Amino acid sequence: MIRQVPTIPIGRDASLSRPVSYRLIALDPLSAARRGVLDTPHGSFETPAFMPVGTQATVKGVVPDLLRQVGSTMILANTYHLALRPGAEVVQSLGGLHRFMGWSGPILTDSGGFQAFSMADRVTLTERGVAFKSHLDGSLLDLTPERAVEIQEALGADVAMCLDQCPALPASKEVIAEAVARTIRWAERCKNAQTRPDQALFGIVQGGSHEDLRGECAEALIAMDFSGYAVGGVSVGEGREEVRKALDVTTHKLPTEKPRYLMGVGRPQDILDAVATGIDMFDCVLPTRNGRNATCLTARGNVKLRNASHKTDSGPIEEGCDCPACLKFSRGYIRHLFLAGEMLGPILASLHNLAYMHRLMREIREAISEARFVRYRAEALEALGSETVQ
Amino acid sequence: MIRQVPTIPIGRDASLSRPVSYRLIALDPLSAARRGVLDTPHGSFETPAFMPVGTQATVKGVVPDLLRQVGSTMILANTYHLALRPGAEVVQSLGGLHRFMGWSGPILTDSGGFQAFSMADRVTLTERGVAFKSHLDGSLLDLTPERAVEIQEALGADVAMCLDQCPALPASKEVIAEAVARTIRWAERCKNAQTRPDQALFGIVQGGSHEDLRGECAEALIAMDFSGYAVGGVSVGEGREEVRKALDVTTHKLPTEKPRYLMGVGRPQDILDAVATGIDMFDCVLPTRNGRNATCLTARGNVKLRNASHKTDSGPIEEGCDCPACLKFSRGYIRHLFLAGEMLGPILASLHNLAYMHRLMREIREAISEARFVRYRAEALEALGSETVQ
Repeated sequence: MIRQVPTIPIGRDASLSRPVSYRLIALDPLSAARRGVLDTPHGSFETPAFMPVGTQATVKGVVPDLLRQVGSTMILANTYHLALRPGAEVVQSLGGLHRFMGWSGPILTDSGGFQAFSMADRVTLTERGVAFKSHLDGSLLDLTPERAVEIQEALGADVAMCLDQCPALPASKEVIAEAVARTIRWAERCKNAQTRPDQALFGIVQGGSHEDLRGECAEALIAMDFSGYAVGGVSVGEGREEVRKALDVTTHKLPTEKPRYLMGVGRPQDILDAVATGIDMFDCVLPTRNGRNATCLTARGNVKLRNASHKTDSGPIEEGCDCPACLKFSRGYIRHLFLAGEMLGPILASLHNLAYMHRLMREIREAISEARFVRYRAEALEALGSETVQ
Repeated sequence: MIRQVPTIPIGRDASLSRPVSYRLIALDPLSAARRGVLDTPHGSFETPAFMPVGTQATVKGVVPDLLRQVGSTMILANTYHLALRPGAEVVQSLGGLHRFMGWSGPILTDSGGFQAFSMADRVTLTERGVAFKSHLDGSLLDLTPERAVEIQEALGADVAMCLDQCPALPASKEVIAEAVARTIRWAERCKNAQTRPDQALFGIVQGGSHEDLRGECAEALIAMDFSGYAVGGVSVGEGREEVRKALDVTTHKLPTEKPRYLMGVGRPQDILDAVATGIDMFDCVLPTRNGRNATCLTARGNVKLRNASHKTDSGPIEEGCDCPACLKFSRGYIRHLFLAGEMLGPILASLHNLAYMHRLMREIREAISEARFVRYRAEALEALGSETVQ
């Protein structure tokens, strides 16, 4: 049974034009999985969708034309890295992020908070914000909710994220509760700091795997009426079960008519789990990072291209794949490129991995429309195996 | 005055079908510059032409589709590197070099001798050939004229090169004379070793800047009737004047109806000089090596993209250039990529540099057809300046 759902007016005030809006297309009858369309100032695309990560305003090794060719729609760039180098004002003076990196499609930027905590030196957290030393040149920097919005407005992505506090896990419930309270206060400050009518702002739900805390955080953010909601703090070192638990108590609390984004999650298995709870958007460095390490994603698990078994293998990375790497090159050749230290190895493996991710998402969307997502998910997980290495 | 020259039958025996043949299109009236077409089993292209170097069966950082897009026609791969890794038999088992590297256009391979001398350890030169230790794993290898042909036949390029002896300069005339004599004897052995009717073999003229030695070498090789002739030993550390001198005493001795290839030369200034003597083909790592180092070639000299002056420069690497880098990206962005250590920096700079080289060659061809090559050359050299850095 395919359920076609009519377009739903977005937000509390449907008369207010929004830079980003979500339309539901289909709901899976046996899970909370949903298919939709996200409209942005730089084009529309279908969800569930995977966003490649272009940390420093480039998806590593992939020219924008090829990125589009493998199926990328919206991509992500990291505010922390770009604010440090080349600086948000440099990006702005060169026409903003889209013009700067030659990507005319939708872009999302994170707030920079997560990287400030994980990469910078001497991080000091106060109610005001995060103070830290740049990991690049040791300069002292200050990231407040207001500054996070200001930087992201200068970068000019279609979607900006609120500055949140994401406690490192495991953490006591008390610590998580404090992070939730601060995340809510900062979200309010971010919202008040917004000046660009053409940029959407998403709130981030924290709360670990505590249903009450997640609920409290979601409720407070929903009252502020963001353009979309992210589930944060679920890709910080915990296992697959913890991720599932956090999602089980969170996703269903988010408004149906807004896009839902699970930050930093990109393992195919985790994506299949998260879609079942109703998540629409994902991002992760996994396809390109694995690609640079000669590990290729396929529907039947990972393929390690450096293995000697591929030396004279004339087959493609993945049979049936229509990506630029699989259409033209053999495993034997790409293995040679990696052993010879040639840039083209990481380039081709990254292209394939991105194509794989986008194919996975397309299959997920089709399965949802055809009301067979639960079966598709079970079969896909079975085929993926537990990190099979070919 | 445009002189259109009719197709000239190739070789001593025009009835013998040849894998590679040259047709003259136009001669410059004021110099020995000439425009022609080289027909190969993998397509035809116009000369004078520049061949990008794909040392390890990949032009560093450039996918074949983009290589074609920037105007590449014939490319070069290095036998020494490929024989060592992955091995000629691996390339052969994966369908030969064209299939292996996904390049359906013409390919030329060198003999491996030059790299054996310059890169390997413990090189021993005898009449039989060159024995050396692999720079990769220390294994002992043996490169004879027969083996050089055998490896290149396994690789399967359109054009193979004879194994020659290229003495390091400066060298006494006596040493150069010995190298010439050996080069001639080895050329004969290479010719006798040939078994593939679909692969052309070029002879290499040695002799330093000695007119008599160059003449003697050319004469002996011409008598063996190769499909084309290369001028060797002119890019081994000597200055521009020495290169010109060697060409002045060599190129005019080569048969008009065969292609002429100047090995390893790629500086725009040197190419402009060499074309004036009648050279048709060039190869060099310069565009991609410079590209990886953020140095861009332009008609007005080199542009160093790391310079702070480009920080907020919204202009392209070269005004008016239609390469994928210049059409979409600013100097400021590409500078950012280099400073951030992103692969896309070398990729874009290499693409531009290759596009520049192919544009230079196209302008040279047009100037020859329009009988204004000498003026074009003077203007181009003037604009290039003496290594202007912007």
